[in-house]
Amino acid sequence: MYIPREKREHGQESCNCGRWGQWPGLHPVLSGGRAGAHLLRKERRPWGAVEIHRKWGVNSFIVCLLEKVIWYESGQEDIEEGRASLYKSVVSNSCKEMSCYPDFPFPEDYPIYVPHFQFLEYLKTYANRFDLLKCIQFKTKVCSVTKRPDFTVTGQWEVVTLREGKQESAVFDAVMVCTGYLTNPYLPLDCFPGINNFKGQYFHSRQYKHPDIFKDKRVLVVFLSTTGGAWVISRVFDSGYPWDMVFMTRFQNVFRNSLPTPIVNWLIAKKMNSWFNHANYGLIPEDRTQLREPVLNDELPGRIITGKVLIKSSIKLVKENSVVFNNTPREEPIDIIVFATGYTFAFPFLDETVVKVEDGQASLYKYVFPAHLQKPTLAVIGLIKPLGSIIPTGDTQARWAVQVLKGMSKLPPSSVMIEEVNVRKQNKPSGFGLDYCKALQSDYITYIDELLTFIGAKPNLLSLLLTDPRLALTIFFGPCTPYQFRLTGPGKWEGARNAIMTQWDRTFKVTKTRVVRESSSPFESLLKLFSFLALLVAIFLIFL
Amino acid sequence: MYIPREKREHGQESCNCGRWGQWPGLHPVLSGGRAGAHLLRKERRPWGAVEIHRKWGVNSFIVCLLEKVIWYESGQEDIEEGRASLYKSVVSNSCKEMSCYPDFPFPEDYPIYVPHFQFLEYLKTYANRFDLLKCIQFKTKVCSVTKRPDFTVTGQWEVVTLREGKQESAVFDAVMVCTGYLTNPYLPLDCFPGINNFKGQYFHSRQYKHPDIFKDKRVLVVFLSTTGGAWVISRVFDSGYPWDMVFMTRFQNVFRNSLPTPIVNWLIAKKMNSWFNHANYGLIPEDRTQLREPVLNDELPGRIITGKVLIKSSIKLVKENSVVFNNTPREEPIDIIVFATGYTFAFPFLDETVVKVEDGQASLYKYVFPAHLQKPTLAVIGLIKPLGSIIPTGDTQARWAVQVLKGMSKLPPSSVMIEEVNVRKQNKPSGFGLDYCKALQSDYITYIDELLTFIGAKPNLLSLLLTDPRLALTIFFGPCTPYQFRLTGPGKWEGARNAIMTQWDRTFKVTKTRVVRESSSPFESLLKLFSFLALLVAIFLIFL
Repeated sequence: MYIPREKREHGQESCNCGRWGQWPGLHPVLSGGRAGAHLLRKERRPWGAVEIHRKWGVNSFIVCLLEKVIWYESGQEDIEEGRASLYKSVVSNSCKEMSCYPDFPFPEDYPIYVPHFQFLEYLKTYANRFDLLKCIQFKTKVCSVTKRPDFTVTGQWEVVTLREGKQESAVFDAVMVCTGYLTNPYLPLDCFPGINNFKGQYFHSRQYKHPDIFKDKRVLVVFLSTTGGAWVISRVFDSGYPWDMVFMTRFQNVFRNSLPTPIVNWLIAKKMNSWFNHANYGLIPEDRTQLREPVLNDELPGRIITGKVLIKSSIKLVKENSVVFNNTPREEPIDIIVFATGYTFAFPFLDETVVKVEDGQASLYKYVFPAHLQKPTLAVIGLIKPLGSIIPTGDTQARWAVQVLKGMSKLPPSSVMIEEVNVRKQNKPSGFGLDYCKALQSDYITYIDELLTFIGAKPNLLSLLLTDPRLALTIFFGPCTPYQFRLTGPGKWEGARNAIMTQWDRTFKVTKTRVVRESSSPFESLLKLFSFLALLVAIFLIFL
Repeated sequence: MYIPREKREHGQESCNCGRWGQWPGLHPVLSGGRAGAHLLRKERRPWGAVEIHRKWGVNSFIVCLLEKVIWYESGQEDIEEGRASLYKSVVSNSCKEMSCYPDFPFPEDYPIYVPHFQFLEYLKTYANRFDLLKCIQFKTKVCSVTKRPDFTVTGQWEVVTLREGKQESAVFDAVMVCTGYLTNPYLPLDCFPGINNFKGQYFHSRQYKHPDIFKDKRVLVVFLSTTGGAWVISRVFDSGYPWDMVFMTRFQNVFRNSLPTPIVNWLIAKKMNSWFNHANYGLIPEDRTQLREPVLNDELPGRIITGKVLIKSSIKLVKENSVVFNNTPREEPIDIIVFATGYTFAFPFLDETVVKVEDGQASLYKYVFPAHLQKPTLAVIGLIKPLGSIIPTGDTQARWAVQVLKGMSKLPPSSVMIEEVNVRKQNKPSGFGLDYCKALQSDYITYIDELLTFIGAKPNLLSLLLTDPRLALTIFFGPCTPYQFRLTGPGKWEGARNAIMTQWDRTFKVTKTRVVRESSSPFESLLKLFSFLALLVAIFLIFL
């Protein structure tokens, strides 16, 4: 087992069980590294006997994190080519109860939304708890992964790696690729006429680390989803509950998916505008029939209403020290331009015949298996943008992939898989529920349930309703926390039920630091008294 | 006419038509200086002939801003004894349409909530527009204001001032005091046992200017209203409308004031908890039967949910490098303590027999006139904490005061005024509406309407409903913008009606910078179609 990592410039070596990705645009992040870490476990547990981190031979997996592992700690703020990058103030936008490993809740004293350094601590604890570090080979770059000549029979791969200047080659039974999609910056400078004349500083958001450089400057942030507008969601959602614990329930999902898309979009727009009317704030999406990636941000409307942030139309022309926007006659003086234009992904170590990337889509069945391989011995983990957390998504993908590799779960014939990939590439809306029309976007609960069904791990709510109604109702109406995915099936976790029943206690334990005795108001007492009297009268009348 | 101002250390002289106060705790601010500026106008207009800024004699007013005028501009960040202070990121918490002078709207391109430097610009423009600068005598300190021996007959005052080291004395027919209450910091160190042993830095919030000193430090902010809890209101209120434009309508005021206080408190709690449940965030007020001063802040819940801010109980003990809180066993390491413990006020230049301050209350009839003076020739402007903006409040107080001084409006007998002051000092709740139980707190609309009634300037909604129903309905159901106070009576403004009818356009003009063509969703069109058909059927059935 192997998670390679390039030698750092300062020669520092540290534990690298996972990678912490960046959030361009603050939407839920997919991180191949974090997916990689649980994959290690998945592989270790069902095939406990396979100790592979030392012997590089057949019967082994390879987890390719390439040279993309990043270890963000104070003082380590270099931006390295080919690695993900994040800035000091990054905080997860998926809350701790929704973004943990399904059998490993975050510590109780962690904030509801976890800052990056604590997320890293959590990953370290996870790696230690399941003794994963000894499975990882650090400071190794994967140069190429190619089919062996006898691939059609054995399904084996030849992997060439580079470690401390030395090239090595080895044969593997299977390969899992967990490289994510937040490493290669996408910077379409051609779309910004005049950018070459600009005399100020400009860079991709990936380079951003600290706000200090912006002091007393006029900064333009180019944000593709907001030039087309975007719905903004606050972490602090209805009554202050975390947005994803309210939005991501099975009940809401069933409700949304049973309604035609226009009605769902209308309801979503109503909901989004109840925080602030996006039209009044210049943020209304141009195309409201399609739910674009929402922007997760607690502060944007507060900044707009106090004039700290101005929303503009798209750029018409960049001049030496200013920018002209469409539909605005006046040009705005600008000192710095930040291009928050997102990322692309690629598999430079893989041949195009294995995984082909076109228009931001890879030819992968259910986002995991190359559709046309003769043997399903290569899996891609974490190359998906669910409107939810990537850790439980990757965990479930890994569980499925392991079952497939073990032969316990069968893939459909190649033609069926290719058909599925082609249909997805056409991006045709179903007409019901939310519209996931962009590459890699998918419906979180529906997708995970599909994978769970493949491995027989989907909780059966109907039978649960008979045997454990409290649990069934909590699963259906409560937040779809990752523990649900470990209630049953291979990799079942005994603590799952308890974790589900105590999810709300854990959520607010850290913010309920100042507890006040509930002094019920006289009005409330009065209301209760009236209700009681009404009940008495009703009973009296019934028995009269 | 005279607004004195101490000579600056760097000898810089600039326009000083007003003072920009600080918001400790971010609640609407009272600024004697801003009240002073419109007072100048009030005096100039009705008594146009009285040119007093040169001749210091009888027949003159004096506006005492004392040495408290502050001119906050870049580079001028010194904190001067006896002057108000503010920090770089201060933004008004009363929106521009609610906090302007009633006959002088903010420029259209100003943000909805105005940062301090733009507020200052606005004050300068106001002073220039009404040519007030020539009425102000700068760099002069008022040392004492005493009754003349023949006060019972003439009502005259002797004012001793200090200007460029030279003491002067002059006699005035009347004096108006506009010194505000945000200058003298209140720092009750005795309440914090062990503070003398603390080895870190500690200071009153008045000293705070920049966040730089807090970098990588553990900072404790002591905030009296939150140790007892507080409701937090965001500027971005229902559907993103400014909080005060939603909260401060005549309709809502009538509604609130006609309900018993417990029901109002229950409704307010429901409303406040709909943004975030204050109990879950450790902010629930201890005593919910009394509406404490709300905290106006857009960011606090977002900071708590991401663990950047922790709410604690009151302080038990301060140690050398840490603090122990009540109900928490663990002590917290602390580097800096900021005491946001508020301000006190005093009138050191006035004798106690003129205005007596006890328990944060001054013995002033309707917060303006000393209740027991033989002649009503001294008025205090702006010594009040309405749950609304201070500029229109001060403006209305000044209009009333001028009418009283001119003899056009009569005060009741001294005994009645003393009775009013005593009743207010007892802080007895009325049992209806919101509970304004703390010193200086008052119901914004009710208070202003009272003063407007005194001078015959309260708009008569019933007669308006007959003559101009659109205006009447906008006044009653729309935000209680200051223009309403200038529709009629002395100082009536011709532009008031138009300003009221266009208040919402002006509000969002600056944030609607990116206008998108409204593409109505198919669902909405369908809804409209169905409604139309239903209407047709209904008409058909009626005429059948």
